[in-house]
Amino acid sequence: MAKPTIGDVARVAGVTRATVSHAYSGKRSISAPTKARVFEAAESLGWVPSHSARALATRRANAVGLVIARDPGVIASDSFFPAFIAGLESGLADAEVALLLQVAASRSAEERAYRSMAHGKADGVIVIDLHRSDWRVAFLAELGLTAVLLGAYEQESPFSCVRSDDAVQMRDLITHLRGLGHERIAHVTGPLGYVHSHARARAYVEEIGSEELLREGDFGAASGRDLTGELLDLTDRPTAVLYANDTMAIAGLSLARSRDFRVPDDLALAGFDDDHLSAHLSPALTSVATDPFRRGRITAEVLLADIDGATPGSVEIDCNELRLRASTAAPAPSIAQGGDR
Amino acid sequence: MAKPTIGDVARVAGVTRATVSHAYSGKRSISAPTKARVFEAAESLGWVPSHSARALATRRANAVGLVIARDPGVIASDSFFPAFIAGLESGLADAEVALLLQVAASRSAEERAYRSMAHGKADGVIVIDLHRSDWRVAFLAELGLTAVLLGAYEQESPFSCVRSDDAVQMRDLITHLRGLGHERIAHVTGPLGYVHSHARARAYVEEIGSEELLREGDFGAASGRDLTGELLDLTDRPTAVLYANDTMAIAGLSLARSRDFRVPDDLALAGFDDDHLSAHLSPALTSVATDPFRRGRITAEVLLADIDGATPGSVEIDCNELRLRASTAAPAPSIAQGGDR
Repeated sequence: MAKPTIGDVARVAGVTRATVSHAYSGKRSISAPTKARVFEAAESLGWVPSHSARALATRRANAVGLVIARDPGVIASDSFFPAFIAGLESGLADAEVALLLQVAASRSAEERAYRSMAHGKADGVIVIDLHRSDWRVAFLAELGLTAVLLGAYEQESPFSCVRSDDAVQMRDLITHLRGLGHERIAHVTGPLGYVHSHARARAYVEEIGSEELLREGDFGAASGRDLTGELLDLTDRPTAVLYANDTMAIAGLSLARSRDFRVPDDLALAGFDDDHLSAHLSPALTSVATDPFRRGRITAEVLLADIDGATPGSVEIDCNELRLRASTAAPAPSIAQGGDR
Repeated sequence: MAKPTIGDVARVAGVTRATVSHAYSGKRSISAPTKARVFEAAESLGWVPSHSARALATRRANAVGLVIARDPGVIASDSFFPAFIAGLESGLADAEVALLLQVAASRSAEERAYRSMAHGKADGVIVIDLHRSDWRVAFLAELGLTAVLLGAYEQESPFSCVRSDDAVQMRDLITHLRGLGHERIAHVTGPLGYVHSHARARAYVEEIGSEELLREGDFGAASGRDLTGELLDLTDRPTAVLYANDTMAIAGLSLARSRDFRVPDDLALAGFDDDHLSAHLSPALTSVATDPFRRGRITAEVLLADIDGATPGSVEIDCNELRLRASTAAPAPSIAQGGDR
């Protein structure tokens, strides 16, 4: 029997040859049932798209890139990453697009990673951990890469942006704590160069009207512990602390306990990101669930659409949910009245 | 000024042109300081290796592949994945090799993923979730891909294999429980088609001498819950249950509690894999830490060496550590003497 051709596959599947080609290129305009029909036909005939023909026909790498400019350990220690990566894969799997994941230890390694992606290894990239004025935006535009930015980027950019408004939950938390009788509410932030840390800190300052109890942390447990210690040492100490992530909040909880502060009676604590662990602590930690899985899925979908020629735009997603738990309650009477332990 | 050439870079860095080329190809035979010198020289001169020249010179994708044939959600819900991926990245980052991660929803999607990796998208692949007789071994060999198998594969294979002996900790756990006075010890396994589940189950049967209290689960919480219920319904119920992962053990703990069994007095429980959460439960869960980060790092190093022409072999790693916690203790006297609650 002669070797099967793309025409044979098209005939058996009842579609055009272009549709067969598109089904293999990850084009999203082909419906899942049609794709399935094409793949079944190809399999029954033993037809395999040749890599070069496919590459020529589509000029697609069928991969999108994610460069992480942090220590590799963060992929396991920060619960954002596994859920976000799982969400990306869930948005890419149907189109059979792979995720090219690269950890870069330096700025120059980062640039080399993006360059090699631009030179055929990826059809587009996802940019996370945005800085308020981020060199990558102009760099990627110059490379001609399609990109999607995760976060509320406020500078000009030619790229789609998937953003959510964290300020809402910061304000809700502060309103809730004030309703319980808290008057001295502190905030331990992430690095303020990051868009997400800055947005949360700005909402805090707007709501509280002062930076007196604002401390800049780095998302790590050690900074959560040390800054909590610093806040508790103040003559007029806070009765509640909001942290920009749960890791710092858990370290703060542990430090407060070790100094015999009762949580939540003497000190109310709340985190952000709702770590896997937080609902199971004693007391359970109030936090804001940010659904990184859904963020990942939507980001992948926007990127695939942009690669297919959609006009870049801003996508506002509403993924956040305040989870009130036992770590936030009314201050003990002596504390609320300004006395101390 | 004329455009800089690879010769200029070699001169400034004080190395040969071949060394410059190898530094960019991810060859591990170039030392890190030499590499750094080459990259600095290239940067100072503004020299960029052209993709095609680089590809021709080295025939490297500078990426390794990992195909996950499970639901994308598992990357977040099973703590093995983030730590293993972080470990892989830690083993790949110095060589500036990326990880091409693809979730495949079907056998044919899986085959297409490996084919496209073999056709230039990856220099080698990592194979996880090995089955006792795994179709991927012959398939990858036929594709001519370099591969490393994670797990104690017992069939013939042309690939390196990174294995650890889980049987040791199963035996230690059983010895420990017997020392505490437990005589009826059950085991809820993972799917027995998997190499890792089978090895743990075999160690259990060898040690206990019977399959009476062996139940096959699927690593999911629902199977942990249901099989625990089944075991507790037995007339001569077990006083201790060993689970093949912590997810099933946590579901079992919760089911036992809901039926008013005291843990560990009425029922001792132990997991495997030492989830992030397990040390923080009440009672804390006895488990076996398997250090997937280190597994990932070693697997990446073995794969990079094999890509560079090392002879494939078997690497035995000793990553496991039994973590005895409050969920395993002596049975309450009435239970140990054969009475029931």
